[in-house]
Parts: sequence; structure tokens; C-alpha cells
Amino acid sequence: MTILPEQQRRKATAMPLLSVVGAGIGDPELITLKAVKALRSADVVLYDALANEVLLDYAPKQAIRLYVGKRRNHKAFSQPEINTMIVEYARQYGHVVRLKGGDPFVFGRGWEEMDYARDQGIAVNYIPGISSAIAAPAAAGIPVTLRGVSRSFWVLTATTESGDLNPEIRQAAATDATLVVLMGLSKLPEIAAAYAGAGKTALPLAVIQNAGLPDQRYWQGNVAAALDPALSFDVKLPGVIVVGEVASRQMNFDISSLEPQTAASYVQFA
Amino acid sequence: MTILPEQQRRKATAMPLLSVVGAGIGDPELITLKAVKALRSADVVLYDALANEVLLDYAPKQAIRLYVGKRRNHKAFSQPEINTMIVEYARQYGHVVRLKGGDPFVFGRGWEEMDYARDQGIAVNYIPGISSAIAAPAAAGIPVTLRGVSRSFWVLTATTESGDLNPEIRQAAATDATLVVLMGLSKLPEIAAAYAGAGKTALPLAVIQNAGLPDQRYWQGNVAAALDPALSFDVKLPGVIVVGEVASRQMNFDISSLEPQTAASYVQFA
Repeated sequence: MTILPEQQRRKATAMPLLSVVGAGIGDPELITLKAVKALRSADVVLYDALANEVLLDYAPKQAIRLYVGKRRNHKAFSQPEINTMIVEYARQYGHVVRLKGGDPFVFGRGWEEMDYARDQGIAVNYIPGISSAIAAPAAAGIPVTLRGVSRSFWVLTATTESGDLNPEIRQAAATDATLVVLMGLSKLPEIAAAYAGAGKTALPLAVIQNAGLPDQRYWQGNVAAALDPALSFDVKLPGVIVVGEVASRQMNFDISSLEPQTAASYVQFA
Repeated sequence: MTILPEQQRRKATAMPLLSVVGAGIGDPELITLKAVKALRSADVVLYDALANEVLLDYAPKQAIRLYVGKRRNHKAFSQPEINTMIVEYARQYGHVVRLKGGDPFVFGRGWEEMDYARDQGIAVNYIPGISSAIAAPAAAGIPVTLRGVSRSFWVLTATTESGDLNPEIRQAAATDATLVVLMGLSKLPEIAAAYAGAGKTALPLAVIQNAGLPDQRYWQGNVAAALDPALSFDVKLPGVIVVGEVASRQMNFDISSLEPQTAASYVQFA
């Protein structure tokens, strides 16, 4: 293969680099300074569904921005396609930022993408994000741990790769851990049944949807109430389920003095 | 009680407000934009041990800064004293920022402090932080979840309030969850024994200390190796233990292009 002068120049100035970056959840100001810094030096941003796409404005104007997340319940690109894109873009343009909602190491495939890129000789970097596992309950005022009430929390998804109920949910129902279920609203009746099977019908249970966003929704009850067939949620919205004594806690915050600004002033801020 | 003119003026201009704010861990750039924003409007900052005290520079020059964390293994202030300080400072000066390492709702007493302040009529606000539960393993390249390897993680502290081993550790040893133990290095032999008792001597186990800092330390082995009485750690350093298949993963990041700047340029950045 002949190396063209342009390619030589590129190779000399831009080391191929993948940064897997957590965008946090809800409020777009829940991104870290380091993530903003990575975006500012991005040549390419490959992003999934984000709480707020204003975050993309941190990247330079000339940077390539490409949505690679789900479209109407099916992936826009397969995982192997995304892996290949990461490597090719890094070689061609330099710094690829892979921007993911929440934290990339919590059910985010961040590690797999870094592992693949590293095998292909690309330097890799990871910048954590605010995870919905902790921050979604918190957005409704529920602490995942609380002195004298909850001394641990167990985070899981509701389904296995084959679509069955995650068997760890039955294990969890037999323990004292606060359960935090991500991406599991369609399995709520089965989750509640697992706890009912362990004799815990009175245990508090809460559901938080669109956490930290202006249209946040909140439901609070217990395992028995969650078994009611009349109970229904819009399962298309992102939702987090909390099961445990802390799920009966709730607190309204006064965030008026710290509300996010408009997109324009927000980007100016950092 | 007579209200002095100065108090009346203060009352008219500054609503008493408590913001419980997560500072994140390790790298001082792992703080959120929203946390920086809260610090910038702080009248008082009450802070615990932080990865980097440069974060205090975000507060206005005239803001009161007071360390209320541990000093040589004992608390500088008791929890009731801190609660009272929060309320009194908020009434006297306006915006109190309670800055805590990691996330304030993960073993941080953040909820209790907000609950107390709210009962006293103080408006409350919460800003999540990057938690060591996820980010400390990640700093060593360990993902708490990994497709086909770990579909859940369970976060706990090693000791009960009476100083005994947290009984949930024996429960966890009987499950498939990836275990993440915070503040538990002194109990490592007992934790390993719990897993050995469940027949899991070959299960990978890793210890990360000073996660994300220039002097990060890392040990990787398995349950059997962690039982070795010759193994010793500096238990005074903050440490996180990970038990599970993912603890055998590790990845070195190339963060040279994204390293934190010096304190001065860092504060200028945001």
C-alpha cells in the first residue's frame, strides 16, 4: 500500500486514540470536567442515546459526529461494526471519543470496545460518568445506602442475553441488599414475584423514569403493589427499579438556584 | 430574639441552602460541571478528606472553608456537630456546600445531613459524584460488569457498625455477583475466607489503592492468594476490593494526552 503525503502528515501529528467517556445522566451539567476536555480534543465523536445532545457542542466544529445507538428498538450499527469504525476513524483522524450515557463500564460495552481497539494497536483511555445505578434513585431522593437501613446495594439488569429473567434477581431477593435494576421495567411483575416468593411482599419498591430530567416520573409502593396487573408504566422510557427499605425514602430537592442554563449559556459555562 | 438590620438584609438576599456535593475520586477533573457551579456560589464549604483540595479553589475567595473530616482516625467533629454547623451556617451565610469524596449517597451520610437540614427548614440539593464503587476498579481497567462475564455487581462495606464482618459478604459469596468492597482492606482475610468457605478459592480477587492518583497501587490474584498471611497492604490508604471473574481483567490506559494540568491551570480550565 502506498502511503500518500496527507496520510503521512496525519500519522505524524495525531496518535490514534480512543477515549471511552461517560456522559452521566439527566442534567447535562452532570458530566465531568475531564469528559469535556476529551470532547474538546475530539476528531470524531461516536455517541449513543444521550440525556442531552448539547454535550456534542463541546467537540470542535470540524469534528465528525455520528450517532451509533439504537434506532426504534434495533441497533443502527452492530457491535462489530462499531468496533471497526472506532479503529478506522482513530487511524484516519486521531482522537475518537466514544460518548455513552451513564458510566461506560456499567452495562455499557465500554470495556469490550477498548479491548478491541487496544488489540488493534490503538491507545485507549477511560473517563467515568455519573451512573444511573446510583444517581437515578438519588434524583428521587432515594439513597442506595443509608446508615441503619441499607448497608449495601446490588446493581443488575433484569434480563439475560436470551431474554429470560436474570436468575440473580431470585438470589438478591434472598439477601439484605438494596436491589437496583437497570433496563428492567418490562420485567417488573417477575421481579416483584421473586421478592413475593421470598416472603417480602411488604418491602418498599420504587420506580424512577427519566431521572434528573424535567419530566422525571416517580412511583413508590411495595412488592405487593408492584404485582398489581393494573399497574402499568411506559416501558419505552428509561427506568430504574429500587427494591429495599430505602425505596420508601423520598426527598424533594430545591434545585432552582442551580438549574441548568440554556444550551448556549451552558456550553459557555465550562 | 431581636433581629438586627444585618440579619434582615442577609435574610432578604440569601435563602438558606444546603448542597450536598460529590467531589469524585482520584483525578480532580473527575468532578461534574454542576458541582463546580455549586462551589462557585458557595458561602461556606464544609469538606471531608478529598482526593485533591484544589477543588476548594472553585469557591469564592471570601467563602468560609472548613475541614470537618477525620483527623488521625477520629472525627474532627461528631455527626450531630456537623448537622448543627450546616444549619447554623446556612442561616447565617446562605449557601452551604457539603463537599464529600466520591458520591454522597454511597456510604457518605449525605442523605442524613440533608434530612436533618430539611427538618430545620433549610432547602436542600444533591449533586452526585463519581463513586469509587465503579471508578476505582475502572481506574485499574476492571469493569464491574462485562458481557458474558459479570451481569451484576454488589457494593458494600466490610464492617458493621459494631466492627464485625458485614454478614452480607457471606451472602454475596453464595451468589454470582461481582463483589465490590469499600473501606474493607483490614478485613481482607475474612472476606477471602467467606469465599473459600463457599468453595471459590480460584475466583479472581483484586485490590486497588489510591485509585486514579499518580501513586495508584494494584494487586491482582485470587481468593486463595488473598488468604496468604504473608500478604499485607497499607490499610491506612483508601482501598477497594473486587471479587469475581472481572477481577482478572486489567487494562493500562494512555492518559498522557488527557492528564490533569497543574493546580493553577486546572482551576483556570473550568
